[in-house]
Amino acid sequence: MAKKIEKIRHSLAHILAMSVQELYPGVKFGIGPAIENGFYYDFDFGKASISEKDLKKIEVRMRKLIQGEIKFKKKRISKKEAQKIFKDQPYKLDLIKELPGKTVSIYQSGEFIDLCKGPHVKSTKEINPDAFKLTKVAGAYWKGDENKPMLTRIYGLAFSTKKELDDYLKKLTEIEKRDHRKLGKELELFTINEDVGQGLPLWLPKGAMLRQIMEDFVLKTYLKEGYQLVKTPHIGSEKLFTISGHLKHYKDDMYAPIEIDDEKYYLKPMNCPFHLMIYKASPKSYRDLPIRYTELGTVYRYERSGTLSGLTRVRGFTQDDGHILCRPDQLEEEIKRAIKLTKYIFQSFGFKKFKIELSVRDPRKKKKYLGSDSDWQKAEKALIKGIKAAGWSYRRAEGEAVFYGPKIDVKVEDVLGRPWQISTIQLDFNLPKRFEIIYTDKDGKKKYPFMIHRALLGSLERFSGLLIEHYAGDFPLWLAPVQVWIIPISSKQLAYSKKIVKQLKENDIRLELKHGNETLAKKIRQGELQKIPYLLIIGEKEVKNKKIRVRERKKGDLGFYSLEKFIKILKEKIKNKK
Amino acid sequence: MAKKIEKIRHSLAHILAMSVQELYPGVKFGIGPAIENGFYYDFDFGKASISEKDLKKIEVRMRKLIQGEIKFKKKRISKKEAQKIFKDQPYKLDLIKELPGKTVSIYQSGEFIDLCKGPHVKSTKEINPDAFKLTKVAGAYWKGDENKPMLTRIYGLAFSTKKELDDYLKKLTEIEKRDHRKLGKELELFTINEDVGQGLPLWLPKGAMLRQIMEDFVLKTYLKEGYQLVKTPHIGSEKLFTISGHLKHYKDDMYAPIEIDDEKYYLKPMNCPFHLMIYKASPKSYRDLPIRYTELGTVYRYERSGTLSGLTRVRGFTQDDGHILCRPDQLEEEIKRAIKLTKYIFQSFGFKKFKIELSVRDPRKKKKYLGSDSDWQKAEKALIKGIKAAGWSYRRAEGEAVFYGPKIDVKVEDVLGRPWQISTIQLDFNLPKRFEIIYTDKDGKKKYPFMIHRALLGSLERFSGLLIEHYAGDFPLWLAPVQVWIIPISSKQLAYSKKIVKQLKENDIRLELKHGNETLAKKIRQGELQKIPYLLIIGEKEVKNKKIRVRERKKGDLGFYSLEKFIKILKEKIKNKK
Repeated sequence: MAKKIEKIRHSLAHILAMSVQELYPGVKFGIGPAIENGFYYDFDFGKASISEKDLKKIEVRMRKLIQGEIKFKKKRISKKEAQKIFKDQPYKLDLIKELPGKTVSIYQSGEFIDLCKGPHVKSTKEINPDAFKLTKVAGAYWKGDENKPMLTRIYGLAFSTKKELDDYLKKLTEIEKRDHRKLGKELELFTINEDVGQGLPLWLPKGAMLRQIMEDFVLKTYLKEGYQLVKTPHIGSEKLFTISGHLKHYKDDMYAPIEIDDEKYYLKPMNCPFHLMIYKASPKSYRDLPIRYTELGTVYRYERSGTLSGLTRVRGFTQDDGHILCRPDQLEEEIKRAIKLTKYIFQSFGFKKFKIELSVRDPRKKKKYLGSDSDWQKAEKALIKGIKAAGWSYRRAEGEAVFYGPKIDVKVEDVLGRPWQISTIQLDFNLPKRFEIIYTDKDGKKKYPFMIHRALLGSLERFSGLLIEHYAGDFPLWLAPVQVWIIPISSKQLAYSKKIVKQLKENDIRLELKHGNETLAKKIRQGELQKIPYLLIIGEKEVKNKKIRVRERKKGDLGFYSLEKFIKILKEKIKNKK
Repeated sequence: MAKKIEKIRHSLAHILAMSVQELYPGVKFGIGPAIENGFYYDFDFGKASISEKDLKKIEVRMRKLIQGEIKFKKKRISKKEAQKIFKDQPYKLDLIKELPGKTVSIYQSGEFIDLCKGPHVKSTKEINPDAFKLTKVAGAYWKGDENKPMLTRIYGLAFSTKKELDDYLKKLTEIEKRDHRKLGKELELFTINEDVGQGLPLWLPKGAMLRQIMEDFVLKTYLKEGYQLVKTPHIGSEKLFTISGHLKHYKDDMYAPIEIDDEKYYLKPMNCPFHLMIYKASPKSYRDLPIRYTELGTVYRYERSGTLSGLTRVRGFTQDDGHILCRPDQLEEEIKRAIKLTKYIFQSFGFKKFKIELSVRDPRKKKKYLGSDSDWQKAEKALIKGIKAAGWSYRRAEGEAVFYGPKIDVKVEDVLGRPWQISTIQLDFNLPKRFEIIYTDKDGKKKYPFMIHRALLGSLERFSGLLIEHYAGDFPLWLAPVQVWIIPISSKQLAYSKKIVKQLKENDIRLELKHGNETLAKKIRQGELQKIPYLLIIGEKEVKNKKIRVRERKKGDLGFYSLEKFIKILKEKIKNKK
């Protein structure tokens, strides 16, 4: 049975239709269901047209109807009877024709009758007239078919209480304010230029710096963790992707080949084939394992142009990719380390809430999968131990593993509670065999190692999108592309300011000197808009006392500081990623 | 007139032919010219065949002939007469047919007559019999035409003195020893795998680290110099390269397009179009200039598979690219800075000798070039001032500028005195107009800025090749992918060794712990072969005294050190790029 709120939302769709009928006689009706957080109704206004500024008067009308305590009455009638009732409603007639059986169900509320199987509230008494809001008007093809007429869809939000509605509206504003596409432009982080190409972001200086900081941090961390850096090309030959099986199983996600002389090359959709060729560059023994390769590897995957969006849906993206090759006796430890590393990386970026999903085989369809029973069991056990060692809980998803191995996916929750799919740690029982990846064991026998794919930030583009939205562009000091503005009040303080610039630069502080004609107040306002963590105001007094005046974002004026003390505070904060 | 040494070389070719005729009667002769450092002669041995092991006996024969003081006599004879003399020499007959005029010149030395216009020595007395050497046998098509017969070419080296020959042979050995393809394999720096693709190196962990160090260093240096980092995709749309003119003027160097939906995308051959689109992302005023963008940008340019070689001729390579957009009044200063920066970068990598070439217009064909007279003059003047400010001399190459602006090329001399074309600093009067790159000047007018392309290391692949050969893989400490090996003598010192590892790692020293079954002597030998700058030997005594024993490459045992002192020395050396 439907929840009460869904009945309310669905009933509001009918009330919307009633109001529109009263205000726009002759309007034709499409459908009007409840949806997440609200409802909509599709209308054919004929030659008339409405816009968002008309929504207010419709809302007023709806509220009046609600207060009239209208009752919803269900009736089952014959199709013939229905065709008579809806004789002026071509879309309803269309629906009636398609419905199975000889009878259909209708709902009557006041004067308004709709073809509908419900459920609805009994009376509009159950609806809080202050807990709904019409939000937007959009075009929608009848039945979603672009060959059919374009109708006008009116969307509404609806909740049980006004507070819920207000909270949701606030969240919407917050989401909009944090939209990385909007902030990316305002903060000059990136741009997408259709002449360069769709789904191919250009990183402007500040965004490029943000990415560089991320890249430097993860690379340094991985190297400390015993990973070995490798670098591989963005294109690979047809032969390579034939060996790997990508051309057989993954071709739809790959772009068309590039012809070079008589050979075909492809933009790489994954880095693994290249890393395995690096493994094969020299023979390996059991003593060489585990081998952990890492690369900031850029991959290209097909996305339809309509689905491209900012940094989160792109056509080329860079992974903080890694591949671990290890012996069976090392598997558990390697997985533990990989999961622990994932947690550390996320915490460093300020994320604390995670959702873990463990994808394993469908136990009833074992034949669908590559790899031995014992390999799957061993891998699953290791993954579970790893998750538990990180203090995480997880959802076990049977049958959701891919054919070549079990995996865990890590979703990160942002500050608004929205989950973002970010990391994968994935076993692979397929590629080592395809590439004949082997090591010589203690007993002199050639064996296949276990192979783990792992990308912790996943796509750096997507993760940048998450960072921008999570922090609303207000990055912690260590990530801020520009950490400090130095603002001399007049040209008289320019020489002293330049000295400050020099000393800060020597300490690797990222800064800009804002010397120009604008007033101090305007510069401070710009600094706020650009979300600069610290503004240093340099006036006569500061020069005289060899001090700086520090203004911290969201805290305001902190008063006078010696430069040395300020640098010390900054360095400490940067080191601790605060 | 030809130099004496060229006469000697040419005469040795004849002496070679004489000797071969004596040893292989019935041999047919092709041609035998003097070449750089020596000579060759092409032979048709018929059914016989010779190999490099036959060269010794030919050399012996040649020496005997030389000591016989044979005279070279020139004669001009009719073609008819020549055809009679060479009636059994089809290749000579072929040449006679093609020579203009009615007479040809021949040279007689002893019994041997050759169709030849000289010049030669008067007598083999002039030839030092110890200053030449036959070096190799190779196949060569008659007239270089693969449809004509394949002849056997015998190469020889020849100098005036034995010392010169010995020095050259030593240099050859040195060149071979330093070959980056050979060292790349031995030191596990990179590999080229035909299954991945031709001309697409895979960077193995140590090579990737070398590259990362280079990348970090140049990026950090450029950022300190006021460059702004940008990051752009490896592919761009047809539209972009139409705007830039690459598809019109540079298509032969580009790879075939990639079809994405109905659009064409290309692997980028240059980064400039992307950087200019970044410039255009927001309006610019005179106060925003100069703008200096930098990127480690990977570009792809067509090379025939036959010409590909190691890291020096590849199909995809990464440039330390930069584009400067500046006002006319800033041009001189920007060029000066760019040249100074070039010099600083090279000196940091240990290069001290340079060859500078300034390419300017052909003053007689001014119409061939884009840009105004005054722009060319201004740019040339700025380039000259910049070169002089760096204390460099230069060669002025009139008519060698490309159509869109003057440039300087910097060749670096390696330790063997070989010049490598590395850097370019290039003015561009074309692209700003094609992309409508403008700034608003003080007077409110829209103007085109000057645009400078500059790549200082050029291709990081090629530059890595140079570094490997220049240092013979024996990199200075700051560049060494692995700086230290820690070698415990037995398992008893493992715990202490691990402590050392930890402390060195905390100080960002790149190291490997060599704990294994091999003997100490073998490990030290391996360390030498792998050209590891420092080997730390950890035995009982070291553990007891809480010391380390340091072995420095090329210096041997340095005795006991405290770890603190050792770290201090290392850090100092790394900082000073020693």
